[in-house]
This record gives sequence, C-alpha cells and structure tokens, in this order.
Amino acid sequence: MPVHLLRDLDGLKRDLLDLGAMVEDAVGRAILALVDRRPDVAEEVRRGDRAIDAKEVRLESECLKLLALHQPVAADLRYVVAVMKVNNDLERMGDLAGNIAERAVALAGAPLEVPAEITEMADLAKAMVRGCLEAVVELDTDLARRVLGDDEEVDRRHQRVFEILEGRMRRDPETIGTSIQLLSVSRYLERLADLATNVAEDVVFMVEGEVIRHRPPPGGVDE
Amino acid sequence: MPVHLLRDLDGLKRDLLDLGAMVEDAVGRAILALVDRRPDVAEEVRRGDRAIDAKEVRLESECLKLLALHQPVAADLRYVVAVMKVNNDLERMGDLAGNIAERAVALAGAPLEVPAEITEMADLAKAMVRGCLEAVVELDTDLARRVLGDDEEVDRRHQRVFEILEGRMRRDPETIGTSIQLLSVSRYLERLADLATNVAEDVVFMVEGEVIRHRPPPGGVDE
Repeated sequence: MPVHLLRDLDGLKRDLLDLGAMVEDAVGRAILALVDRRPDVAEEVRRGDRAIDAKEVRLESECLKLLALHQPVAADLRYVVAVMKVNNDLERMGDLAGNIAERAVALAGAPLEVPAEITEMADLAKAMVRGCLEAVVELDTDLARRVLGDDEEVDRRHQRVFEILEGRMRRDPETIGTSIQLLSVSRYLERLADLATNVAEDVVFMVEGEVIRHRPPPGGVDE
Repeated sequence: MPVHLLRDLDGLKRDLLDLGAMVEDAVGRAILALVDRRPDVAEEVRRGDRAIDAKEVRLESECLKLLALHQPVAADLRYVVAVMKVNNDLERMGDLAGNIAERAVALAGAPLEVPAEITEMADLAKAMVRGCLEAVVELDTDLARRVLGDDEEVDRRHQRVFEILEGRMRRDPETIGTSIQLLSVSRYLERLADLATNVAEDVVFMVEGEVIRHRPPPGGVDE
C-alpha cells in the first residue's frame, strides 16, 4: 500500500474516533442536564452540536479527497465508504443528543421523576457508540456483535419506560405534558442505539460480507 | 466519459428512482391502512419493506462495483457517493413506512379519530420523496429548495398534531393509549420528511458545493 494512502487512512481513523468521543460526551452531558436539572449544561450540548456538524462535514470531504486521490480498491475502498456511512450516523447521533438537551431545557422547571431506565439506556448507548467505533477501526466483528446484543437491552428498557409513563399519565393526567417529553427522550436514546447498531452491522458486513442489517429483530420491523 | 461508465451511472439513476417509487408507495399505503382501518394493507407494507431492503443492499453493491471498476473522479465520484447516501436514506424511509404500518395494525381495533394534519403530512412527505429524488437525478437545486420549504410545512403540522393530541389526552385520559400511537405516527412522518430534506440538502451541496444541511432551522436543533 502506498505510504500516502496508509497515512490518509490512519487520519480518517483518528478523526472518526475523535468525532465518536464528541458524540459520547454529548450524550452523557445531555442526560446529566436532564437528570440534574441543568439547562446550562443542556445549552452547552446544543452549542457543541455545531462542532460535531462541522467535523462531520470535514471528515466527509477528507473521504472524497482520499477516494479521488488514491482511488483505493477492494478492502480499502470498502473501508472509506464505511467511514463515510459511520460519519453520517455519528452526526445523526449528535443531533439526537441535541434533541435530548432540548427536552432537558423544556423540563428544567417542572416537577420530574426520571425513570432509572432512562439513565441506564443512556449508559448503554454511550458504551454502544464507543463499541461500534472500536469495532469499525479494529474491524472487530466480536465487538460488533456485542453492540448488537446491547441494542436489545436498550429496546427492553424503552418498552419499560413506555409502560411506566403511560401508567403515570393514566393515574395523574397532570403529568401528561412531562411524560410525553420523557417518552421522547427515551425514543431518542433508542434511536441512538439503533444508529450504533447500524454501524456494528456495517462492520460485520465489511469484514464478513454478510448483510445482517435487514434481518427482522425479535420485536418487529427494524427502524 | 467512457461508454461503460455512462451506462452504469444511468443504471444507478434508474434503480434509485425505482427504490424511491417503492418508498413513496409504502408511505401512501401505510397511511391508508391507518385511516381506513386496514390491517391487511398494513401487513402488505411490512412485507414490502423486505423488498425495499433487498433493493438497497443491491444498489449499494452496484455503487461499490462502479467505484472499483471505473474509479470515477470529480463530479462522477460525488454523484456515486450521493447515490449511496440517498440509497441509505431511502431504506430508512422504508423502515418508517413500516413503523407507521405497525401502528396501523395496533390501532385497527380501537375507536380512532385521525387528525387531518396526519394525512396532510403524509401527502407532503410523499411529494418530498418524489421531489428530492428528481432533484438528485436531474441535479435540480430549485426543486431541492422547494423540498426544503415543504419540510417546514410538515413541521408545522407535526406541532399542531402534538397540541391536538395532548389536549385530547387531558380531556379524556381514556384516549392516552391511542393518542401516544398517533403521536408516533406523526413523528415517523416528520422523520421521513427530515430524511427527504437531507437528500435535498445533499443535492444543493453536490451542485453548488454549499453545505446547508447544518444550518439550525427556525425551530431549534436539527434532527
């Protein structure tokens, strides 16, 4: 492999990991803002999303440059294309962290009981972001498959949050407004986990050539 | 441009339009299933999602083959990369149509009043899917910008559905279960419109080199 191509591929890897760390951090702080009633932290997350967006744009243009300059084939080509897809997914994860931060601001003034499952989902989602990125850069399919397992844990908790909040709304219609907001937070976390799952599935595909991303999950249509 | 490359690029264009037509049809039928209480139609949509998934996988592998074989540069390279991104977005739109169909099944037995805004959102979303694809294959930035305008219309209706359903839940807690499901449908349509918006933004970027996809929308953080 030409030295320049090797160096450029390494650069992509570093940028992707940096972007992943930014997203992981944003998710963690968005949930902290929600649970600790810290609209100031939520505001930081929303501002930080602009840095994530800018990094995504830069990384995509790096990928295009690399493709045009080195015209990689076979495994290198598949790798660059995978980086572009993951980059896109990371940017969407950043948006979801921003959405959670928005809800944290909206909920900051209201009486609120955040179900423990929501913080558990956030912890799982952060681990999945880290896991799926390590899986990408190390081409580690075992790790990718562990991420897929975590997604089921997230889905179970999302289902539970749904039941808890629906029950709460029925018992006390005063909580309808805040419960709907918390349901949205739970759904954002579920989508974050789904995006990490996409990435993990792409890793398995890239390494083993096996398309697992469209097998219907236990719960129904995949999203 | 070599004849083979031209032929292969044309093939991508046709496949992309076919996939778009499948997605548009799925959205239309999912909403019909919801409004007309037709779980059988919803089931068809869910089965049809497998065909959409299969087509997405095939189209991505066509793109990879084209990149490896012709090693396109400049505008052709950007075009193929755009097709890969749009392909991915279309598959996600298909999933959302499947999600709406799932809700249609869940709601088929319950008393239900679907807000008119939901069918309006579906009509807008279908037009956006068609519009953004035409914008891609014709590289038509005027059309792409019209799609961006429609997204604001969808967001306005989503906000309205939210208010209608929250009010309904407060007045009649018996409707909490069905209202939450309808809220999800509205949210799926909003995401569908967002994905069409992504595509339209990519077209503007591809043609004019201007990144508009990360400008914050009037309503807050983009999703």
